[in-house]
Amino acid sequence: MSGSLFGKNFRLSTFGESHGPALGAIIDGCPSNISLSLEDIMKNINRRKPGNPQVATARLETDQVEILSGIFEGKTTGAPIALLIRNMDQKSHDYSTIKEVYRPSHADYTFDQKYGFRDYRGGGRSSGRETAARVAGGAIAIAFLKELGIQITAYTRSIGPVMVPADEIDLSQILLNPVNMPHMQKAEEALAYIAKVKSQQDSVGGTVECIVHGLKPGLGEPVFDKLDALLAYAIMGIGGVKAFEVGVGTQASTLLGSQYNDAFYAEEGTVHKKTNHSGGILGGISDGSSICIRAHFKPTPSISQKQKTITASLQNTVLEIKGRHDPVIVPRAVVVVESMVALTLADLLLSHLGSNLETVKKLYK
Amino acid sequence: MSGSLFGKNFRLSTFGESHGPALGAIIDGCPSNISLSLEDIMKNINRRKPGNPQVATARLETDQVEILSGIFEGKTTGAPIALLIRNMDQKSHDYSTIKEVYRPSHADYTFDQKYGFRDYRGGGRSSGRETAARVAGGAIAIAFLKELGIQITAYTRSIGPVMVPADEIDLSQILLNPVNMPHMQKAEEALAYIAKVKSQQDSVGGTVECIVHGLKPGLGEPVFDKLDALLAYAIMGIGGVKAFEVGVGTQASTLLGSQYNDAFYAEEGTVHKKTNHSGGILGGISDGSSICIRAHFKPTPSISQKQKTITASLQNTVLEIKGRHDPVIVPRAVVVVESMVALTLADLLLSHLGSNLETVKKLYK
Amino acid sequence: MSGSLFGKNFRLSTFGESHGPALGAIIDGCPSNISLSLEDIMKNINRRKPGNPQVATARLETDQVEILSGIFEGKTTGAPIALLIRNMDQKSHDYSTIKEVYRPSHADYTFDQKYGFRDYRGGGRSSGRETAARVAGGAIAIAFLKELGIQITAYTRSIGPVMVPADEIDLSQILLNPVNMPHMQKAEEALAYIAKVKSQQDSVGGTVECIVHGLKPGLGEPVFDKLDALLAYAIMGIGGVKAFEVGVGTQASTLLGSQYNDAFYAEEGTVHKKTNHSGGILGGISDGSSICIRAHFKPTPSISQKQKTITASLQNTVLEIKGRHDPVIVPRAVVVVESMVALTLADLLLSHLGSNLETVKKLYK
Amino acid sequence: MSGSLFGKNFRLSTFGESHGPALGAIIDGCPSNISLSLEDIMKNINRRKPGNPQVATARLETDQVEILSGIFEGKTTGAPIALLIRNMDQKSHDYSTIKEVYRPSHADYTFDQKYGFRDYRGGGRSSGRETAARVAGGAIAIAFLKELGIQITAYTRSIGPVMVPADEIDLSQILLNPVNMPHMQKAEEALAYIAKVKSQQDSVGGTVECIVHGLKPGLGEPVFDKLDALLAYAIMGIGGVKAFEVGVGTQASTLLGSQYNDAFYAEEGTVHKKTNHSGGILGGISDGSSICIRAHFKPTPSISQKQKTITASLQNTVLEIKGRHDPVIVPRAVVVVESMVALTLADLLLSHLGSNLETVKKLYK
Repeated sequence: MSGSLFGKNFRLSTFGESHGPALGAIIDGCPSNISLSLEDIMKNINRRKPGNPQVATARLETDQVEILSGIFEGKTTGAPIALLIRNMDQKSHDYSTIKEVYRPSHADYTFDQKYGFRDYRGGGRSSGRETAARVAGGAIAIAFLKELGIQITAYTRSIGPVMVPADEIDLSQILLNPVNMPHMQKAEEALAYIAKVKSQQDSVGGTVECIVHGLKPGLGEPVFDKLDALLAYAIMGIGGVKAFEVGVGTQASTLLGSQYNDAFYAEEGTVHKKTNHSGGILGGISDGSSICIRAHFKPTPSISQKQKTITASLQNTVLEIKGRHDPVIVPRAVVVVESMVALTLADLLLSHLGSNLETVKKLYK
Repeated sequence: MSGSLFGKNFRLSTFGESHGPALGAIIDGCPSNISLSLEDIMKNINRRKPGNPQVATARLETDQVEILSGIFEGKTTGAPIALLIRNMDQKSHDYSTIKEVYRPSHADYTFDQKYGFRDYRGGGRSSGRETAARVAGGAIAIAFLKELGIQITAYTRSIGPVMVPADEIDLSQILLNPVNMPHMQKAEEALAYIAKVKSQQDSVGGTVECIVHGLKPGLGEPVFDKLDALLAYAIMGIGGVKAFEVGVGTQASTLLGSQYNDAFYAEEGTVHKKTNHSGGILGGISDGSSICIRAHFKPTPSISQKQKTITASLQNTVLEIKGRHDPVIVPRAVVVVESMVALTLADLLLSHLGSNLETVKKLYK
Repeated sequence: MSGSLFGKNFRLSTFGESHGPALGAIIDGCPSNISLSLEDIMKNINRRKPGNPQVATARLETDQVEILSGIFEGKTTGAPIALLIRNMDQKSHDYSTIKEVYRPSHADYTFDQKYGFRDYRGGGRSSGRETAARVAGGAIAIAFLKELGIQITAYTRSIGPVMVPADEIDLSQILLNPVNMPHMQKAEEALAYIAKVKSQQDSVGGTVECIVHGLKPGLGEPVFDKLDALLAYAIMGIGGVKAFEVGVGTQASTLLGSQYNDAFYAEEGTVHKKTNHSGGILGGISDGSSICIRAHFKPTPSISQKQKTITASLQNTVLEIKGRHDPVIVPRAVVVVESMVALTLADLLLSHLGSNLETVKKLYK
Repeated sequence: MSGSLFGKNFRLSTFGESHGPALGAIIDGCPSNISLSLEDIMKNINRRKPGNPQVATARLETDQVEILSGIFEGKTTGAPIALLIRNMDQKSHDYSTIKEVYRPSHADYTFDQKYGFRDYRGGGRSSGRETAARVAGGAIAIAFLKELGIQITAYTRSIGPVMVPADEIDLSQILLNPVNMPHMQKAEEALAYIAKVKSQQDSVGGTVECIVHGLKPGLGEPVFDKLDALLAYAIMGIGGVKAFEVGVGTQASTLLGSQYNDAFYAEEGTVHKKTNHSGGILGGISDGSSICIRAHFKPTPSISQKQKTITASLQNTVLEIKGRHDPVIVPRAVVVVESMVALTLADLLLSHLGSNLETVKKLYK
């Protein structure tokens, strides 16, 4: 299998190469009667587009989504929803120089080894462009979750050494700066840092954090399909992510039980926790507090500096990548993270519906 | 679904509660003709058992595996392999005190919320005991991978503040100390630290690292089913894991592209990389160098100190957990990590067989 | 994959060979809080046992089910339910004569070709014995459906030339005769016919019909996962079934539209059909009338007459099967058909829960 | 789930409604390096088109396939292959009269019951038009199987009372007559019968038979995923099919074992069977002889005669369907049957590759 199918009940399939005719997303298993407009989808598609030239590639990506099926009179029908995005810029000249060369830390070599074939036009199926289809499909999952009162918010937590302190996060700022940081001053520091890195023909990584509000207790399965395991699968499936954390994450390995444990308390008949080190998940199941996860992105592999590498015929060579590339992909990845989290929750929610006879009976009458 | 099925082609199903009659593992989809003995399975089962009383629970767990199907005359038959482990210690008195109480950072509350039901006898399905079934099933995946020259080695990289430096790892030491560290002196430091924590009725977390040798290039899928995404799903599905890293992991977000990128070079017609920051995976596909991942475990939630919590009837209360509990689960989790990695690779390998017509033709004749 | 997993949401896994230590069934994904007793399961297990020696094999099959997990205090917990059946009669001497021979119309040859291995002890994984595990697991699906008012009734419609006329079916008679026919006189004719066939060292086939009452409209998916397609998969997965029909079945190909179409009419605000040629399914989705399907079984392949066949070393030979074998399996297959239908409906029902936002909202609050 | 995904390893997803903007097919998991041209796909698409006006609808369906991804320089890449078919004739006026009416033996009522929504423009997702996407995707499976020497041939075996005798089948005639019968004289009789039925504003059913040559022994799984069970699922998933048969089919239930059993014999070291009553499948696994299955289609439900039915508001009414409709769909269904059989075999073949360690080793070196 080529692994382009995500989810079991609320399923996303994506297709398309960076330099082929089109990209696409098919959502299969979406409930009927969800109000959905093209604007809802385009809003997120545009969030993924390169914003500030300081930050992102100058290659213009004009992604226009066309709805091909599954929506009738403004509502989902229960049938597969097909979304098409034509590739406008299919010219391959930017890439012709690397036709015979394996770019370091790119998928060129491994893709070739796997399929016995080289799409020298660019990243092909491994290109970050494929995430446009995920964002299109994710918008449908987000619309579904919104109907159930579940909101997903991601933002850039850090770029290189510039990190937003936990106690200074201001979600209202995210969309007001080109790096999507919840902190205006840190955003400016990040932009300055990116400009410096770019002037050195280099690139940099960063961290995206995502919060989920409004999720009820009970989502996720106790053994393999833990909510955090499924989120890890979704997030590590985004190109460039090298680490996944939930709650306090890596820090958990250095804490004492007395420091880590989240004390429960009850107030007016509702359950609360004094802390949320667990990130809203206990034993793989949502506990009703907010979900908090983090994704660590590596630097963009395409840099203009000379790099030692090999050719397809295994000759040692020096590569100098032409064209303009993102010095950092993190700000554009924010909406991709939101989309993958939404797809995970939508899928889990549908499978969860059948977990208790009482709830099944509520429906089946 | 209760999410007790792992894998698509080489599949593990587990069943059983910590205080029910038995645990079990079913492997479905294992190729025929693999030599397999009960000893191969028991070897790993025993590695999971509490070793040094300083480290692990004093509750004696004597796990004896019985093979019920799928093996004939010492070889796998291609039919499902069923493995049964009877629970010897089903007495619930240790737990009776907590029948009405939700233990902090345990699955009690969320499990109850999900299923509308409380297994007050202990962790039930959420108990770490379930991992015995994973280890039994994982032993079959390990035997299969061994036939293909793939070796998986995990060890305790850190316990609380005690960490083995990357350049001092000595794999030959792992089985020679009760904490399974690849470093004798650090192991002693860890034991001393654990003893201190235990004397304070507290617990501690740690990190398990896992290396895979002998994996050829080409395993893993370029989009959702990336090798690292599937490994993350497998590892985050182990109870207590709060973070997953591949290669340099979280560090990747602070590096420059010029620092991170692994330069390729060719020597005598074979491909090498000067560094392996990627952890053996490029674009979600194995690159032929060794795979390196890390799992960060939280401290054991059961501590003897008094803890504030609530009852099932939402009354605030103070809990004092009786009985003896592991101050750290990390050393026992080492073989569980190996098992989950093996199951992931075995499953991916079977689905990978059909990725290229040339290889399909080689098989289909 | 060895294809021993049935269903996506309400899943049955079976394991075990006819002459291995045990058979087993694991149900994963069953909702919690369903009342279930061992008696419910044994009742159906006993219906599968050879009844009248005139009809079935004299090999005594004493199947005792042990519940290993998933049931607590008389109710399902939401965790996997594991059911174990030890094989009492594992002696292989009956089969030793055929160790080197491929029995005609048995799976010996194809199983060997697939797995490169011969389980000469008997049918091994391909034996009808495996259906005992399906019946055990099916009993849980039946209990679940009963909670929702869905009843499944199967019976022997015909044995060889002896068929019960459609307008003479009397469900109250099914359990009162050893061939499970809904017609006492036809049952006696069938028994006489079977006795004659047996005296000629021959075997005979027959037909099982199954009716489902109480299924609401809306179950089944419009494209590939049609209710009738999933039922066909379930029924054709029973050994010996060579044809599957829904409603008028094969007859549909010779009818005119004006003869076939089921006219709708409304009475006191409820929908009715003047006829039910469709068998309760329109466009792959249940229409609220009773479901009616038929399975056609071939004669038992093991007959005592001399048969021409080949050895594993491809020598032509003549086989004379020793031991006593069922001259007909149809009466024992009735409960297997009910079980597979129940498993199909339970699985479809769980996936159906998420098909409409209104119902999802009803559950998710 | 909306059940628009077919297969586990070689997967087809279809989308699109009869009167929406487009239909589409995505093939995911197809091996790389298979030569594939648009002509290969269009050849089958055209076989599905209405041929002789005597036989099929006069509504002109001009289906032009566009390849959107997964093919590069004339070969499959291993990435998802997306195929788009724009709907040319989206005008709904033909259907406006039935906006409020449930057509007898159509999916109108059940679709509405399931999704709480009515696509009054026509069959919507339940329309036979969806099969155009299956044929497009199936063409890729056929190309893959051809590379392995597997050929699939389907034809019209009967229309109403006109049936081609088993011993007079001449495959060379199939494409030479508009009803795709392997017998010119019977084809003429069928055409005359269809003309008569049409003059009576009526419709008629028929039977499609499909033969598979070149399949090696070993395909199919011994328990649930039997080759015949998977074929039954595929064929019963085609709209209008009410019965599925393999080999002698329904006849098996009236035969004696001594009549039914296929005697093996060996000749020059190869295995043969004197008869093929089993249809090339033993115990769910292919035996190396040709596969033979049959699908029985009901008459087209849309007839111009007045029919009693109900409105969406449950009023009794009389329906007179306007517009021109196929009096029989069988001839157009022939290529759909071939496509579904090909998709089933391609999927099974990929999962089969891992069934034996010896074959796995052959590849993985």
